[in-house]
Amino acid sequence: MNFIYNKIIKKIKPYIPGKQKNNFIKLNTNENPFSPSPKILNSILIKLNNNISLYPDYNLKKLKYIISKKYFIKKNQIFIGNGSDEVLAHIFFSILKNNFYTIFPDITYNFYLTYTKLYNIKYKILPLKKNFNIDINNYIKNKNSINNIILTNPNAPTGILLSLDKIEYIIKNNINSIIIIDEAYIDFGGESSIFLINKYSNLIIVKTFSKSRLLAGLRIGYVIANKKIIKILENIKNSFNSYPVNYISFISAIESIKDEKYFNIIRNKIIKNKLFLIKKLKKMNFKILKSNSNFIFVKHIKYKAFFLNKILKKKNILVRHFSYYKINNFLRISIGKKKDCKYLINTLNKLILKYD
Amino acid sequence: MNFIYNKIIKKIKPYIPGKQKNNFIKLNTNENPFSPSPKILNSILIKLNNNISLYPDYNLKKLKYIISKKYFIKKNQIFIGNGSDEVLAHIFFSILKNNFYTIFPDITYNFYLTYTKLYNIKYKILPLKKNFNIDINNYIKNKNSINNIILTNPNAPTGILLSLDKIEYIIKNNINSIIIIDEAYIDFGGESSIFLINKYSNLIIVKTFSKSRLLAGLRIGYVIANKKIIKILENIKNSFNSYPVNYISFISAIESIKDEKYFNIIRNKIIKNKLFLIKKLKKMNFKILKSNSNFIFVKHIKYKAFFLNKILKKKNILVRHFSYYKINNFLRISIGKKKDCKYLINTLNKLILKYD
Repeated sequence: MNFIYNKIIKKIKPYIPGKQKNNFIKLNTNENPFSPSPKILNSILIKLNNNISLYPDYNLKKLKYIISKKYFIKKNQIFIGNGSDEVLAHIFFSILKNNFYTIFPDITYNFYLTYTKLYNIKYKILPLKKNFNIDINNYIKNKNSINNIILTNPNAPTGILLSLDKIEYIIKNNINSIIIIDEAYIDFGGESSIFLINKYSNLIIVKTFSKSRLLAGLRIGYVIANKKIIKILENIKNSFNSYPVNYISFISAIESIKDEKYFNIIRNKIIKNKLFLIKKLKKMNFKILKSNSNFIFVKHIKYKAFFLNKILKKKNILVRHFSYYKINNFLRISIGKKKDCKYLINTLNKLILKYD
Repeated sequence: MNFIYNKIIKKIKPYIPGKQKNNFIKLNTNENPFSPSPKILNSILIKLNNNISLYPDYNLKKLKYIISKKYFIKKNQIFIGNGSDEVLAHIFFSILKNNFYTIFPDITYNFYLTYTKLYNIKYKILPLKKNFNIDINNYIKNKNSINNIILTNPNAPTGILLSLDKIEYIIKNNINSIIIIDEAYIDFGGESSIFLINKYSNLIIVKTFSKSRLLAGLRIGYVIANKKIIKILENIKNSFNSYPVNYISFISAIESIKDEKYFNIIRNKIIKNKLFLIKKLKKMNFKILKSNSNFIFVKHIKYKAFFLNKILKKKNILVRHFSYYKINNFLRISIGKKKDCKYLINTLNKLILKYD
C-alpha cells in the first residue's frame, strides 16, 4: 500500500538531541550532574504505591499553587506540560501560527526552527552580532511592524545573557507582538522576566525543571503569561492529551519547589565548578564566551573544535559540537561535577601536550 | 493587547476527562483499581537516584526491545509516546491529515472527534446499530472509496468486542485505507490484531499501559504498525518533543512487560469482579451490554441514569454518564476492587429500596 499522509512530514527535519551514552562523562546536553533533592526521592517513595495506577490530576492544581506562591503570580497565569519542548510546541501551534513572522536569532535553540517547519509557520532568522550578542536593533527596527519574537535568555549555545532592561526595551517597542523568553538557563546567572507579565500581556515566559531543578528525566516544563494566553494553551492541551504530566513528575516538581535550600546549594556548586573550569581552560589557550548559564561555549586558539570533540569522545567525554559554519569552531561544554571538570581538564592537557 | 492566534482554537471543544476526586470510589475513568506489580515499585526504588537528573534514552530502545519480543515483531514496528492520547494525536496530525475522510462510530472514544477538530481533518461519523454493535457494512460500502477508519476494540463506552475475523474483513475491503484499531481494553476479553500488521501495511494498532498494565499515572502508550508508518511517527515525535516518555515511566513499562504473572493475576481479578458485579446488577433489574473490557455499560429498567449518577455521587461513588441522547440513559461503570463492587451494589440496593 502506498498511502497518503500529511505532506508536511516530507519537509521537516527533526531536531537532533545530544547523544545519551552510558559510561560516558556527559557534558553535552546541559543537564544537571547532581542527584535531585533527597526530599524529592523520599516523596516519590512515600507516594509510589497509592497513585500510579490512577490518572494524575489533570489540572495539576497543587503544582500550580506552589509555583504561583513562589513567583507572586496567579494559578491562572501558569501552564504546565511534558517538558518545555512540549510547551513550546503548543505555543508555536496555538499562538505563533498567526498572520505574522516568527523571528529568532540564527544561533539559538534549534528546536524553534523545527517547530516553524512542523506547523508551517512563517519565520525570519536574524543573525547575531559578530561577538555573538543579540543585536536588539534587529528586533525594534520598525515600530509598526508586528512579529512573534522568541529569544532564549541566557542564549544557547552561547550562554550570553540579555539584561532585563534590554528585554523590557524590546517588549516596549513591540507592544503588539508576541514575545517569548525561554528561560531554561536563567537560574544559573540571570534575573527572570516573570515580574513583567503583569505589565505586558504579550509576554510569554517559558521555564523548565530540567536544568537548575535537576529533573530532566522527569520532563516538566511550564509557561508563565497572561491568563488569556494560558487559557489558549490549556485548550490545546485538553485537545491533545488530558494528562501530559505524569504522577511522579507532578509530585517531584512540587517537592523541588519546596526545597529551595537544596536548589541553591546545587546552583552554587555549578557556578563554582564553572568558574574553576573557565580558569583552567583559559590557561590552556581556550577562548570562552561570557556565560551566564550551566554551560560554556569555548574555542581553542589552535585546535579545531571538530578534532577536539572527536578525541574527547574517544576518552569517554561527550561535549556538543554544532556544524553551523559560524560556530563550528566552538564546543559547548555543560558544567559537570568537580571531578568531571578535572577529568576534562586533565584529558585536554594530555592531548595538548601530545600534539603540541 | 488584542493578539492574533491560530483561528482553529476558537472552534475546538477540548475533550473532557472523567473527574478525579479524592475520597471517592472511582469507577468513572476505566483505570485499574489495583496497585502495580511490586517488581515495578522495586525497580523504581533501585534506579531512582541515578538517572532522573538526566534525559531518558530518546529511542527508548530497551522498552522497544522487550515489547518486540512479547509480540514477535520488530523494534522498528513500535512507536512509544506519553500515553495513548499523545500517540493518537500524532497519528491524526501526521497520517490522517490526508486527502480522505476519517470515519468512526457515533458512540466511541470522544477524543477522536476532538483530534479531527484540532487538526482540521475531514471526518464522517457513522451510527452504531440499534443494539450498539458496529455496523461493519458501513465500513465496506464501496470497495473503491478510501477512508481513514478508526475503531476502539472493544468499543468504549459500550464494552462490545468486534471479533478478529470481522476486523480482518474490514481491512481486506479497505486495502488502500488507513485502519486504526485502538486496543486500550483488549486484554480484558479479546484477541489483539497485532499479528495482522505483517500482513496488512495499512493497519495501525494503538495500545496503552494505563488499563491492564496499571500505569495510568505514568502515561505510556504505543503503536504497533508497519515500519514506514512508525518512521513517520518518529519524525513527528522528534520534531515535537525529543523525550516524551520520562525515565520512571520507561523503567516501569519494562518491568511491567517482564512481570507477566502479576499482569495475569490482576486481569483475572478484574474479570472475576466484573462477573460478580454483572450478576448482582442483573438481579436489581439492570440491563447490561455484553462487555469484553474492564467496564460495563448499564441501564436500569426504571431509574434514569442521570438520577442514579447524581445519587451515587452523593454516596462518594463516581461512575460515568454521557449526555449524548442515544446513551444518556446508560452509566459506564469501571470494574473496581471486590469491596468497591460490593459497596456499589449495597448503595444501589438501598436506593432502590428507598425509592421503590
